[in-house]
Amino acid sequence: MLFTKFYTKGEIFEPFLPNLVPDQALQNILQAAHHAPSVGFMQPWNFIVIDSIEIKERLAWAADKEKRALAIHYENEADKKQHFLQLKIEGIKEAPYTICVTCDPTRGGSHVLGRNSIPETDALSTACAIQNMWLAACAEGLALGWVSFYKKQDIRDILEIPPYIDPIALLSIGYTKDYPDQPILETSNWEKRRDVFDLLYRNSWGHT
Amino acid sequence: MLFTKFYTKGEIFEPFLPNLVPDQALQNILQAAHHAPSVGFMQPWNFIVIDSIEIKERLAWAADKEKRALAIHYENEADKKQHFLQLKIEGIKEAPYTICVTCDPTRGGSHVLGRNSIPETDALSTACAIQNMWLAACAEGLALGWVSFYKKQDIRDILEIPPYIDPIALLSIGYTKDYPDQPILETSNWEKRRDVFDLLYRNSWGHT
Repeated sequence: MLFTKFYTKGEIFEPFLPNLVPDQALQNILQAAHHAPSVGFMQPWNFIVIDSIEIKERLAWAADKEKRALAIHYENEADKKQHFLQLKIEGIKEAPYTICVTCDPTRGGSHVLGRNSIPETDALSTACAIQNMWLAACAEGLALGWVSFYKKQDIRDILEIPPYIDPIALLSIGYTKDYPDQPILETSNWEKRRDVFDLLYRNSWGHT
Repeated sequence: MLFTKFYTKGEIFEPFLPNLVPDQALQNILQAAHHAPSVGFMQPWNFIVIDSIEIKERLAWAADKEKRALAIHYENEADKKQHFLQLKIEGIKEAPYTICVTCDPTRGGSHVLGRNSIPETDALSTACAIQNMWLAACAEGLALGWVSFYKKQDIRDILEIPPYIDPIALLSIGYTKDYPDQPILETSNWEKRRDVFDLLYRNSWGHT
């Protein structure tokens, strides 16, 4: 499969280098995001590009606080808890840019094609934009990490986001020394990659 | 922007040709999906590949029923209602394959990294897989359409999907005569593409 390695590369999460990210690369990543498909062509996304050291420190605090809170749920599995706390799962302070990708559920008006049937198509469309950013970052030689450890209200408070807007993801972007060939959660033995053939059915659930 | 046209192509929704889709192309699209990133490496997706004429007809019925129900919400806008009913928004019966992409919220156990903070990261990860399918389909010269007009319970009934599994999307795949350069909702004047610069903020919401 031609794209396997390319797509897998997008999942890496290595410490970021301090090297500056060229404006053109950042623009290309944002254009790729904006040209993602969206259900009903609703384009529900906004992008808050963060390079302020002060704001990055506050976001990193919110993520670290949530990580420590989550570790408590592994308290009956001491090894897993230790493993979890050691995982390098975000690099907000190190990365030159972190982009908060948001979803506006009011975009396009009251009766958007598709969202009238399945309301969460707005968030799903925003995730398509995020996947384009991942691939575009890779094409630019940049690493991208999706931070999903935070309380949304903390992020709204720090970035002054209105209460009805969903801060879907924090994406840290920067150069990295080496792109690993596998996701770090795979190489660190946190999770295994499943066999795709175990996930395929034909014509109905459970039938192969 | 190098990828603009490529990414935009993925959004097309032209009538499908009856030409057979090679097995290898289908496999490549499914492998691209499975190699999408997933929060906590949870890989929450399954893929039901549908080529049964009987099942395709039942899915098309479910989508058409929902489309007619949705049209009622435009009853105070006669022109928009007519426009809506004329839009060619699905080709389930014509496409050689329709793939139902599902999300299993139990995949990976009770405390998946990231999902413990933001439960919908499972559906967002599944949407990343869908975006990979869109791009991989385009690379294979195939058109892909995301059908988001249905009641989930109808799709569960038709495809025998358990009640806790989320049927995120129906994706129809096949060859098409022409790839348009713009989304059909744009060329048909249903919606306009927004200017990306109106969607960008710096360091906090509303600041440029």
